[in-house]
This record gives sequence, C-alpha cells and structure tokens, in this order.
Amino acid sequence: MTLRPVLFASLVALAATFISVPASAQENYNAKAKDAPFVLHPDRTATLKLKAPKGHKVTAFATFAPGIWVDMEYSDSLGAYVYTTPEAVSPYHHTYFFVYDGVQITDPANVHTVRDVTWQRNFVLPKGDGDDQATLMSTNHTPHGSVASVWYDSKVAGRARRMNVYLPPSYFTSSDKRYPVLYMLHGMGGDENAWLEMGRLPQVLDNLIARGRAEEMIVVMPNGVIDVDAAPGYGEAGLVQPEAEFPHLFTGQFDLAFPEIVEFTDSAFRTIADYDHRAIAGLSMGGYNSANISRQYPDMFGYVGLFSAATKESISTNPDLRHLLTADDLRGELFSDFDGKLRRQFERKPRLYWIAIGTDDFLYDANKDYRAKLDAEGYPYIYRETPGGHSWNNWREYSVEFLPLLFK
Amino acid sequence: MTLRPVLFASLVALAATFISVPASAQENYNAKAKDAPFVLHPDRTATLKLKAPKGHKVTAFATFAPGIWVDMEYSDSLGAYVYTTPEAVSPYHHTYFFVYDGVQITDPANVHTVRDVTWQRNFVLPKGDGDDQATLMSTNHTPHGSVASVWYDSKVAGRARRMNVYLPPSYFTSSDKRYPVLYMLHGMGGDENAWLEMGRLPQVLDNLIARGRAEEMIVVMPNGVIDVDAAPGYGEAGLVQPEAEFPHLFTGQFDLAFPEIVEFTDSAFRTIADYDHRAIAGLSMGGYNSANISRQYPDMFGYVGLFSAATKESISTNPDLRHLLTADDLRGELFSDFDGKLRRQFERKPRLYWIAIGTDDFLYDANKDYRAKLDAEGYPYIYRETPGGHSWNNWREYSVEFLPLLFK
Repeated sequence: MTLRPVLFASLVALAATFISVPASAQENYNAKAKDAPFVLHPDRTATLKLKAPKGHKVTAFATFAPGIWVDMEYSDSLGAYVYTTPEAVSPYHHTYFFVYDGVQITDPANVHTVRDVTWQRNFVLPKGDGDDQATLMSTNHTPHGSVASVWYDSKVAGRARRMNVYLPPSYFTSSDKRYPVLYMLHGMGGDENAWLEMGRLPQVLDNLIARGRAEEMIVVMPNGVIDVDAAPGYGEAGLVQPEAEFPHLFTGQFDLAFPEIVEFTDSAFRTIADYDHRAIAGLSMGGYNSANISRQYPDMFGYVGLFSAATKESISTNPDLRHLLTADDLRGELFSDFDGKLRRQFERKPRLYWIAIGTDDFLYDANKDYRAKLDAEGYPYIYRETPGGHSWNNWREYSVEFLPLLFK
Repeated sequence: MTLRPVLFASLVALAATFISVPASAQENYNAKAKDAPFVLHPDRTATLKLKAPKGHKVTAFATFAPGIWVDMEYSDSLGAYVYTTPEAVSPYHHTYFFVYDGVQITDPANVHTVRDVTWQRNFVLPKGDGDDQATLMSTNHTPHGSVASVWYDSKVAGRARRMNVYLPPSYFTSSDKRYPVLYMLHGMGGDENAWLEMGRLPQVLDNLIARGRAEEMIVVMPNGVIDVDAAPGYGEAGLVQPEAEFPHLFTGQFDLAFPEIVEFTDSAFRTIADYDHRAIAGLSMGGYNSANISRQYPDMFGYVGLFSAATKESISTNPDLRHLLTADDLRGELFSDFDGKLRRQFERKPRLYWIAIGTDDFLYDANKDYRAKLDAEGYPYIYRETPGGHSWNNWREYSVEFLPLLFK
C-alpha cells in the first residue's frame, strides 16, 4: 500500500505525541518537573544548576552574580554544572542564561523565560523583605487585576493593531464603576508585551493597589511601531523572529495617530474620559512619544511620565539613531511650533510632569538639555535622578515611584 | 569605601543591562534577529538549522520529520548543524527541540515556544492550502477577538482563581451585544493556558468566525485543578516549575463547584445566560469533567463535547490513574445516582452531545463502553472516530469540527 508523501507526513505528525523518546533523552525530558534550577538559600546566596554530561564548558550569564558572567563547575555528586553566589542576591527581577559548549541556551529545567527585544532569558524573582522590586513584581495574596489582549482598528495604519490592557481588580465585579487610564509605552525594539513581561506591570499594580499606594486604574499598553500590527508571533506576519530595530520609528505617525487609541479605549472600557483622569508615560522611545503626544494634544493628558526619555535632539544628533529620523520628519507636523505647543501644554497646568533618568544613561545629557528648556520657561516638573543607566531595573523602579502619584 | 554586600549586589544588578557580553557570545546573542531557524521550501520540504561550533553531537526532535528523531549534520558553509526533510511537511502545528551534546534545548534562534504540561518546545506553523490546521491556527487577515486573563473568586477553593476568556471580534465594538458561551476544559497536567498555547483556540475561532463557519461566542478556559490558583508562574506560588500530575484531580470538587464559574462569567461578561447558549467541552480529563458537570447540572448546558474523554471507570480501573481517585470520591455526590442524573440530562434533550476519540487512544475502549451505555438507553449523540491517539493534533482537529456545530 502506497501512502502519498503529504498524507504519510500527516499521519506521522498525528502520531508524534506518542513516539517514545530514547532513554537517554527521556531523563532530561521531564527535568522541568523535577529540579529547582535556581535555589535561594537562607543566607540569600543562591545556587544555579545545569544538569548535563561531564566534560563540557559551561558559563552562565546571571544578573545576580557579581561580574555577571561566571564559569560553572561540574559536580559529580549532582551530575550537574553548579554555581553558587559568594554574596547575598538582591531582591530584583534577575535574568540568566547558559552558554553550553558555545551555544547560548535557556535553562532546560526552567520554563519561565522573558523576552526583551531580540533576546530571551530565564528570570527569577528572589523576594526580599516585602517592599522590594522582586516582591512587588510577584503575584502575591492580593486581589488581582485582569490583562486583556485586544485589537483596535487603526485608521492611520489601515489595519487592526494589538494592545494589552490591564483592568484593575474591581473591574469585573463592579459593573458601573469607571476608572482613570494610564497609557504606558515601550521603548525602541519593544512592543505591547514589554510592560507585561519585562515590567510585570500587572503584578506591580496589583500589589500597589492592595497596599493602598496606587489608585485603581486601567493601563493601556499599545504597540508603538506603527508599521507592525503586533509583537513578533502575535500578528499577521506569523511566527517572525524579533528585530532589534524598525525603520521609520520616529516619523511621528504613531504620535499623531494616538487619539484613535484613546477613542477606542474610551469606547471599549469603562474609563473616566477626561484630562484629570488620563496619564501617559513611557521609557526611552516611549518617553519621547509621551512628551510628543502630550504636547501635540495638550488637553488630553493631565499626567505625563518620561522614563529615560529620548528627545528629538538626542535622536537627530546621535550617529546610531539619526537614520531613524529623516529631515522631513523633523520638519513635520509633530515638531512644528514646538515651543508654542509646549507653552499651551503647560498653560493647561498638568497635574504631574515627571522626569526620571539614571546618571549613567546615554540620554542623561539630552534630558539635562530638555530640563533646561523647561526651566527657562518656568514650566514645573518633578525630577528624579537615580544611579544606573538605560535599564529595565530603573524603569521598574520608576514605575513603582510614578504609579502612586497618579489620579490622587 | 566599603559597600555592604546586598547593596553591592544591587548595584551590579542595576548595571547588568550594560555589561557587554564577550565577543564569542555576542554573535549568538542576537541570533534570534538574524536567522530563520525553520525554512519551508517551495516544494514544502523544510530545513532546520542550529548554529553552533563544529564537532558536537546534535539530534533534533521534530514532529515534521519522518521518524521524529533525526541526526543533524554539520555544514561548514553555514557554520551550523542542518537537517532537511526528505518529504513535504504537513500543514500542522509542529513542535521541535534539539539535544546538543546531551542537553535538551529549545532553539536559540527561535523565540516562539509552547509548553504542554512539563515540556517546552519550539513550534512552527507551515501553512497549507488555506483550510488546514496550520492556517486555521495562524493569525490571518481577519477581525480578531480578544483574550483576557481574569480571576474569579472561588468560594469552594477559598481564593481567587485564574481563567482565560476569549471575547469575539465584535465584543468591544458592539457595546450591547450578548454572546453564547463555551466552557473549554484542559486535560490532566494542563491548565488555563492549554487551549491558548497548545490549542491556539483564539486563532482558530477568529478564522472560523471570519469564514462564517462558527458563531461569535465567548470561550471560558478555567483551571481544572482546584488545588492551585493558576498555571505555573501565574499564581501565588510564584515561579514554580510545572508538575505532570496533581493529587485529588478526580475528587469532583472542580466539577461540583462549576456553577460559581458560570455565575462569575454571566456577571462579568455580556453572555446569553441560558441552556441554549451554553456549551461545555474538554479533552481527556476535561472531557471527563464535561460529562460530569453537564450530568450534575442538567439544565445548564445545551451543548456537550467529549474529546478523548476519560470516564469514571477508565480512571478507577487504570493502575496508573486510580491513585488519583479514592473510594470516597467514587461514592461521593458527583457519582451518586449516575443513571438518574444521566436520564434527566437527556430528558432535557441537549442540542448536541458530541463524542470524539482516536482509534489508537488508550481511552478508546472506555469510550466504547460509555457509548454502549448511552445506546442502551437510546440517548442520542454524535460520534466521530479518527485515526491517531490521545494527542493535541486530534484535539485541535476536534475543535475545528466541534466549534461550527455550536449555537446554530
């Protein structure tokens, strides 16, 4: 009996779940269920482990290890490569991966990974004393908000575009209650999943709300790359791999089209649709967008947050970035009458204009220049300067500081 | 100057994003952005590639390869281990992973992974002629529904529990429209994410609705393990690794408590809250639950779907499963007056009672016995028998067949 190739392949595929794996692979096959890949000891040192055959070169990249890159040593008794930190591990959102004989791999014994732009790593949350980043980013015993992935119809892009929406704990149990809205934007190379995965914003908000430190609010996380419809793998382009950069990021198209996102949000969800109950914030490119959008639409946002924000000048004069912006972009609608728009924005007296930057950030000077511009006109803002640079650790800390300031 | 260890570790963590990686790792570091790990050729053969140093043993588990397990051969020109299928690849949801010198790894160049119970693999969707599984599971140019992860307050469990909800494309643009509801249950070791990740039910429904083959409906995907609040990593237990089995899966607690899920759904979402607009279906353990719940609450579900369903007898007499069920469970409320409850269920004349099983399924005989029981009483049902066994490929096919039968 002859089976046509396609049919045969189909039958094989149907049967695949039942093909038993060779004994040698079988053991590792279920490793995820058996081993704790990262163990936090009572003294807060930690051990990382990779179960693998002896005689290979294994290094780990681990943000909780002093020096970050560490060599793993083989333990005969454990049948695994092992590394233990010499010092207590800080209560942060830490990431790690292995390089096993020249190939970068995630931990075969840990299903929890996180993606930032193109890279994917494992992550761990070694909790601290209760008010630390790792605790605030964890799911604790609090009421939980919801996270919805929804699609809005973008007239400007000519298609549906995906965004994520955090709905606070009482949203589905209080059928009439309305909520203020924060629009939270990602950085270059990021997407609508960034504040969920890298920022764990739903967990942070659940915890801040439960502690009475933040108001219940809706948070809308749109995709700031107008050329795509969704994060890699979620859109019509299929299972594409993420790219580090996109062309035309800074054309202003996303910024100028922002009202369609606000309109959709106000029609789809129970929002309080006014200036005093609407905030916009973002990191890096998202901070640039937040400044632009709130300036372009001065009656829209009573609260603005710029986390390590890029500025027009920092992009147009940066040799690594300026190709993302053409001369036409700079002369376009978004930057026309810059000073006049900024004046109108501040005449409206925003309830909060919040700027934060790390002292090691490559955008530190750009932010200094921007603050000087605001200072020269006497426009009020709150300024937070922190150690560190252009990093998610800072953006997480900024979110924990910024969220309690909203809608009070 | 002396830094306290914890502070020092914190500063290191803050700086981690900026530590440059060694040149050797750097190249691979951005591999995800550069390489297409799986290439489908015009003749539908496919090439799989792992970029890694020469001289290692690399095998791949790939459901699209005849024989499933294949050896990868090193190509000097590509600097990678390569495998090309000898035959056309079927248009299914295919999964793969590598074993690289004894360690099972996901593809470092592919960020798209899927988890089923304890394992995690990469997946690909080589689309076919337009009406195949891979196409129906892809995000195509159609209106898109939303997916919300929400928490309902379970009085029986004494805590909030997570569930996923598909809301059809018109949900957020038609503020008054109400929808029928399908409750879709996972199998043993699965969780509320199973029908999203392994089943890609939102994509399937988007496509079936756009083609006019299925009605717009809400789909509720709860977590069927009453002892936990959420899928691994989403609940208060933190970043736990998934377990293959849970105790007390078959006590009936989940089944008996099901009305609280229906009540929450009917209060939180715009449902049509009646028998003719409510369906329940599930795979394996979820099929067992669907039969039990619909029998226990005969006025609740007008549509029932049993996909490779377990039965009371198939658990209590199976040496690998019977420890999950105690004698008390068997004598409990769920199985009391079994025949009487079944009679009342069928007296109500369900609009659909749908049973599907693969001929190689280990539950084939159990299903045969169950059908004999229905036949003996003359209770009507639709029966679908397919090739294959207890596999997601079957459950995906069943969902494509079952969804168009609902609410018509």
